[in-house]
Amino acid sequence: MSVDGLTHHISSRYNEDLQRLLSNVLAMGGLVERQLTRAIGGISEANEEVIVRVAQEELRVNQLEREIDEDCSRILATRSPTASDLRLILTILKTITDLERIGDEAEKIAAIAARLAGRERPRNRYRELRNLGELVIGMVHDTLDAFARHDTALALAVLRRDRIVDEEYEAIHRQSITFMMEDPRTIRRALDIMWVVRSLERIGDHSKNICEYLIYLIHGRDVRHVRIEDIERELSVHPVREPEARELGNDHGDTVPLAAAGRSGMLGAGAVRPGSGAE
Amino acid sequence: MSVDGLTHHISSRYNEDLQRLLSNVLAMGGLVERQLTRAIGGISEANEEVIVRVAQEELRVNQLEREIDEDCSRILATRSPTASDLRLILTILKTITDLERIGDEAEKIAAIAARLAGRERPRNRYRELRNLGELVIGMVHDTLDAFARHDTALALAVLRRDRIVDEEYEAIHRQSITFMMEDPRTIRRALDIMWVVRSLERIGDHSKNICEYLIYLIHGRDVRHVRIEDIERELSVHPVREPEARELGNDHGDTVPLAAAGRSGMLGAGAVRPGSGAE
Repeated sequence: MSVDGLTHHISSRYNEDLQRLLSNVLAMGGLVERQLTRAIGGISEANEEVIVRVAQEELRVNQLEREIDEDCSRILATRSPTASDLRLILTILKTITDLERIGDEAEKIAAIAARLAGRERPRNRYRELRNLGELVIGMVHDTLDAFARHDTALALAVLRRDRIVDEEYEAIHRQSITFMMEDPRTIRRALDIMWVVRSLERIGDHSKNICEYLIYLIHGRDVRHVRIEDIERELSVHPVREPEARELGNDHGDTVPLAAAGRSGMLGAGAVRPGSGAE
Repeated sequence: MSVDGLTHHISSRYNEDLQRLLSNVLAMGGLVERQLTRAIGGISEANEEVIVRVAQEELRVNQLEREIDEDCSRILATRSPTASDLRLILTILKTITDLERIGDEAEKIAAIAARLAGRERPRNRYRELRNLGELVIGMVHDTLDAFARHDTALALAVLRRDRIVDEEYEAIHRQSITFMMEDPRTIRRALDIMWVVRSLERIGDHSKNICEYLIYLIHGRDVRHVRIEDIERELSVHPVREPEARELGNDHGDTVPLAAAGRSGMLGAGAVRPGSGAE
């Protein structure tokens, strides 16, 4: 085998490794999104079986988290990635922690859904929870799409939506306190609503975290604890930069051009990710 | 300069990098522990200034998180660590995320402490919160000690204590609901107590996460989602193993023997970590 052939061989194995990693992250994200959709559905449909399904999916989510963690360690140890490949691995390591915790919150919501199913339902059938739930499911969905397509604009849109979630959270919170004070018999139900809203707010935060990592991946800029207006201003001035490529040392030459790969569909058929939307 | 001299030079620079990293993680942990101690103190002392101090410390915590993240990226890119050094970097990357979130919860507790300071206090001056707070501060403290000394036994003790926190959480939760139903005028205060307890329970979870990463670092075994009895049984059979050293490829020869370094005090003066206990 010629040196060129060997390089090509190494390169394609490496690309396969990275592709498997990415498709596992998106599969894990798809599962978590489905858990959340089921849990929210369980509230409005008063469905007690939801908790069993969500818990089953949790086992698979945890298994995927472990697999991805191991794959990242192996790639770091054997490939010594630098620049954008290194950022990709670091982004994935952080992303899966947040995805796993979104799954945990979905499980908590499912448990409350099962409890609410056994109680008298309010007239509006928890419309406020359904609305906020839809908003947060949309955030998780768009976060995964932004991840699959390396879409900065979509990631920024998720960051902005997190503010709306926080406002909704405050509003439902205040309303629940009012109900509790007016009629103490509704205390348990109002508390359950508050816990669900709290979990949804956390899920919004986790989505926001992932979008911040994604901006780090695409732009090499750590935007945690930075105001969104400042991020938007800065990114519109410097839409795509690779500041670390020079600082961190040269690439091995066997890297996948990530932004391009993401846009043209690293996972095969276009930019469609598994489990997206359909169910 | 001889080749030996050069190797020694590289080796000592690398060791300095790892030491700086470790001392920054422990400094960050010390700050977070202090934030939590202040926040809990603020509840029993009805001290409104607490929130300002805790928020000031949060800025430093966030700054440290960013610095450590950057240092980890730089070491991964320029040193290509393998085996135990790689596990150390991965452990640190995950640990600082949990530490930062402990700081966030401490800030939430401080905000509630400021609110409680403006209200009539119950006879017991929130003794149940102080007790649970002490327990959780102890968990954070021991987590950081376990980290500094690579102490598996202490890490396992923290995992066991997380169960007590969960039980206490449930008990205070039930009691608060009873109070609310008996006297609706106490609803707001009871809710504030519930939020504090919820934050403490989260902090317990974050400590547990860090201890699980630590067991991965020392034993190369991922114990997330594994029952503590199974972990203890397994670790007592295989007290110290290095399964990944061979699998992941050979070391560069410039690694720090971590377990030994931790025990003999990687940070200089013995195994004492900065900010530990005092304040």
